[in-house]
Amino acid sequence: MEPKQTQDKYEKITELAKRRGFFWPSYEIYGGVAGFVTFGPLGTILKRRIEDKFRDFFIRRFGMQEIESSIITPGKVFEASGHLAHFKEPLVECLKCHKRFRADHLLQEQAKMSDTETEKLSLKELETTLKEKDIHCPECHSKNFDTPKQFLTMFTTTIGPYSEATGYGRPEAAQGIFVEFKRLYEYAREKMPFGVAQIGHALRNEISPRQGLIRLREFTIMDVEYFFDPEEPCPWIKQIENETIHIIPAELKKKNIKKPIKTTIKKAMEKGYVKTPWQAFFMAQAKLFLTQLGVPPDKQRFIEKLEWEKAHYSLQSFDQEIYLDRWGWTEVSGLAYRTDYDLSRHMESSGVDMRVYKEYEKPITKERTVIKPVMAKLGPAFKKDAAKIVQLLQKINPKDAETALEKQGFIMLESFKILPDHVKISKEKIEEKGKHFIPHVVEPSFGSDRLTYITLEYAYQQKEDRTVLKLPREIAPIQIGVFPLLNRDELLKKAQKIHKKLFDAGFSVEYDDSGSVGRRYARMDEIGTPLCITIDHQTLKDKTVTIRDRDTRKQVRTSTKRLISTLHDYFHNNKRFEELGTPVK
Amino acid sequence: MEPKQTQDKYEKITELAKRRGFFWPSYEIYGGVAGFVTFGPLGTILKRRIEDKFRDFFIRRFGMQEIESSIITPGKVFEASGHLAHFKEPLVECLKCHKRFRADHLLQEQAKMSDTETEKLSLKELETTLKEKDIHCPECHSKNFDTPKQFLTMFTTTIGPYSEATGYGRPEAAQGIFVEFKRLYEYAREKMPFGVAQIGHALRNEISPRQGLIRLREFTIMDVEYFFDPEEPCPWIKQIENETIHIIPAELKKKNIKKPIKTTIKKAMEKGYVKTPWQAFFMAQAKLFLTQLGVPPDKQRFIEKLEWEKAHYSLQSFDQEIYLDRWGWTEVSGLAYRTDYDLSRHMESSGVDMRVYKEYEKPITKERTVIKPVMAKLGPAFKKDAAKIVQLLQKINPKDAETALEKQGFIMLESFKILPDHVKISKEKIEEKGKHFIPHVVEPSFGSDRLTYITLEYAYQQKEDRTVLKLPREIAPIQIGVFPLLNRDELLKKAQKIHKKLFDAGFSVEYDDSGSVGRRYARMDEIGTPLCITIDHQTLKDKTVTIRDRDTRKQVRTSTKRLISTLHDYFHNNKRFEELGTPVK
Repeated sequence: MEPKQTQDKYEKITELAKRRGFFWPSYEIYGGVAGFVTFGPLGTILKRRIEDKFRDFFIRRFGMQEIESSIITPGKVFEASGHLAHFKEPLVECLKCHKRFRADHLLQEQAKMSDTETEKLSLKELETTLKEKDIHCPECHSKNFDTPKQFLTMFTTTIGPYSEATGYGRPEAAQGIFVEFKRLYEYAREKMPFGVAQIGHALRNEISPRQGLIRLREFTIMDVEYFFDPEEPCPWIKQIENETIHIIPAELKKKNIKKPIKTTIKKAMEKGYVKTPWQAFFMAQAKLFLTQLGVPPDKQRFIEKLEWEKAHYSLQSFDQEIYLDRWGWTEVSGLAYRTDYDLSRHMESSGVDMRVYKEYEKPITKERTVIKPVMAKLGPAFKKDAAKIVQLLQKINPKDAETALEKQGFIMLESFKILPDHVKISKEKIEEKGKHFIPHVVEPSFGSDRLTYITLEYAYQQKEDRTVLKLPREIAPIQIGVFPLLNRDELLKKAQKIHKKLFDAGFSVEYDDSGSVGRRYARMDEIGTPLCITIDHQTLKDKTVTIRDRDTRKQVRTSTKRLISTLHDYFHNNKRFEELGTPVK
Repeated sequence: MEPKQTQDKYEKITELAKRRGFFWPSYEIYGGVAGFVTFGPLGTILKRRIEDKFRDFFIRRFGMQEIESSIITPGKVFEASGHLAHFKEPLVECLKCHKRFRADHLLQEQAKMSDTETEKLSLKELETTLKEKDIHCPECHSKNFDTPKQFLTMFTTTIGPYSEATGYGRPEAAQGIFVEFKRLYEYAREKMPFGVAQIGHALRNEISPRQGLIRLREFTIMDVEYFFDPEEPCPWIKQIENETIHIIPAELKKKNIKKPIKTTIKKAMEKGYVKTPWQAFFMAQAKLFLTQLGVPPDKQRFIEKLEWEKAHYSLQSFDQEIYLDRWGWTEVSGLAYRTDYDLSRHMESSGVDMRVYKEYEKPITKERTVIKPVMAKLGPAFKKDAAKIVQLLQKINPKDAETALEKQGFIMLESFKILPDHVKISKEKIEEKGKHFIPHVVEPSFGSDRLTYITLEYAYQQKEDRTVLKLPREIAPIQIGVFPLLNRDELLKKAQKIHKKLFDAGFSVEYDDSGSVGRRYARMDEIGTPLCITIDHQTLKDKTVTIRDRDTRKQVRTSTKRLISTLHDYFHNNKRFEELGTPVK
């Protein structure tokens, strides 16, 4: 009984999303602009609940800070971070119709080359490969292309009234964190490790965006930057070391092996698949997070990026991929070990010291070579120049001087030849109490638009005659539907009263008295409302209502007196549906 | 005992904000860029709580929809909306140092002219006034300025790889709502009135932004667009008609009267100060909202914009102003009656019908004139042309034909002269069941950055030796501090246990065991934490803790058993502090 059997899940969800107000392409009245999506009333709530879940899962649970910085970012920041040089994609123009395309995407689509293969190609190689593979323009079918060029995929603008003040739309929220590192470290009471997150819009001026919510020009990024001392262990790794993940490490990928290894975090560390325990820690968390959003573990995997696929700032990167009906394995988050790259670059560019100070548990004693003038010899030998030589001696490296004296028997300071008896070389013990270092960073990075789509796809079910969104109860946009069973005044009034009571208690609740109860249930199932409450004649007699479960269609009858706490238990204390009342046969 | 008596509140709050992680100027390591601010950990929470309060107060309470659309907006939208033509400010360049300024701001700062006065001036008049008032460059003191120009204060960029696809950073979220009107109306089940809101970043490329959070280049806008039928009354006006507001209507402002009239919404409507009850309704709500954020009613006023001060889309605009220590009366929200301006413009530009259909309660019967051929006369008179004349008769306006026949005795249809007996003119009754119209819109528009600053300024108090932020309890970033009274193991353990319990129950709670309890209280007062819980020796004996009130410094003692529900009552059910336990002497 499925309508239009030819539709894939993407089409079905896109249709549902438009019709029920989850999301749709923006600016349709002007013909639309690729890469921009508007979230409607239900989609806005769903997306925000996913972001709030992220907040709860990552930020709050691990005591991280959250900040909010600007999308428009001055040019200097992306010069320093390397984005201006690296945030580019190969663009090619059809010489006949003058449409422009991603050269690598043409090869992927028409020659079935993989990401891994195309990423490796230089502009020159792209040009020859386009010819070799006989690629045609998807618009006009010409095979005549211009030379591929690098296209900067950041939106460019001017800040203020001076044309030289270039600004960019941030392609990641991370830089807004790195440039503020000193203040954030201070806020963390100068203690490592600590994490900072940012959730906000980001911009990528894609050459030809496709795939709806999966690849947008404007999207919401959720970046975590976790700062740590690479010499210290990750104290939480024990908690998740037995968590299982599916992983394709670089060594397998290079051999073109596509079947992931199923292993524990502990084993993945032992095998050396993951270069820092912090990365492994967040891989486990990312897996758990997606599982909570409804994606089963076997539909998730981590695939390592090869040397030429990684972002310029990363020592080791994994894509967390999940399986989608239309696109197959699709990136849902990126986990990058950014090391001290970004802080070092900003330190260099700004001249501001980004190092932190680490006090040793016990001071470390080190030996230092010292060189001192022997004035009794130096004075007579150099007379009025002796004072100058004393100054020069302070500037040289005593260790080098010692070696020179040993090897060649003298040292030259400008034009003065210093002999072994002019100076005294000795060893001193010094205590080092700590050291300065630049913290390392691992970054798990998600997009909430993409997560919204993925959540919808995994929640989407067609059963017999109905569509059900099996959204996790804590993110469903409408929590409860309230219906009078029949269109009679006393039932309508009672239902409205219960609706108001639940609304005032803070639930997101929708009242509906139009059409048959069956149709009303179906409407609620289709938007993922977990519970529906029906007011019937028995309600008027004994002050009970029925509650219906979206997924099983089972019903229980419960007292209106305890209704708020009953529902509170279900939504906030994870109580099972069956515990909400006595079953209705 | 106040330190640095010369600091005004703005300086004090700015200093506190930096030190405690509320907000600070962005990109300081690169010398800063005017008009961009970063919200730190506490500021991010505070700002989001203000936005959530807005959501609750406006969106949820009035059953509005919330949507999320993109910041980058295609050029066509702002062409249609009139922003491309009107969203400009007068820029003037100093010919000596080549710095650029807002011409009107120079006149306001140096010649003490008002907004109202400078807004009226054309570019030509600005030029002569700069000379007349002997204005100098604030940078180099030269009095030699270039001719003022209009500067577009939208950020401009290019969407995608084609240079002709201009995009702008949205200066308001409203257009993202208007262009989606048809889908939103459908979602509202095609019923009027309904409201749509959007909270998100917006961009204004200010020429020379000043005033910290008050005037930013990137900020968070909270726009409500309320769509209504101008022929129908506002059903909720009764609820707030006795609400008092302070208002300076245009007629007073023109006479340069600056003292507002204190009046009720009802009277303001009767006097004709406000042109639609929907505007009046939202003025009352805006006042109540600011009052809940801590601004007393006598520090608030509504001031009407004069003809030349209003935005191009507005029939009537009020600024809601509140009084700030440094800047005096400052705009906190704008309330614009945008009529059907925006929907009409988009309808015209896109060719998409934005009208809604209104069914009359009872069909309206109208009389229509009908003209019909009398074939018995027409046939013989025109022979083979008769058929053509029948067609032509269908195209003319019967009313005009009737008049022509009465006045001149014939009508001309092309070259055919039609006489009275060739046609029959009659009257028919027709029923009109409804009509199409373009909805009107009122718009209350807030900025959450600005509200964050205002809330902080009104919460800021210095008492004897301490600074207290008297933030309303529902928006305080940290709700509860938890302290062990003394640094003893058994107290530390117990305090950490209570901290975890409250954290797990969802409270935002901070544990602190460093320094004296007095210092810890002071730290919490300074960031506006309403309650502090102290664990002492008595806790170990009788399982009670003290709770201290930020504002009165009073303490109560209460059982740890009921602690969660006690705190829940305080934060969510508005219970008074005194009711939380037994007073401590």
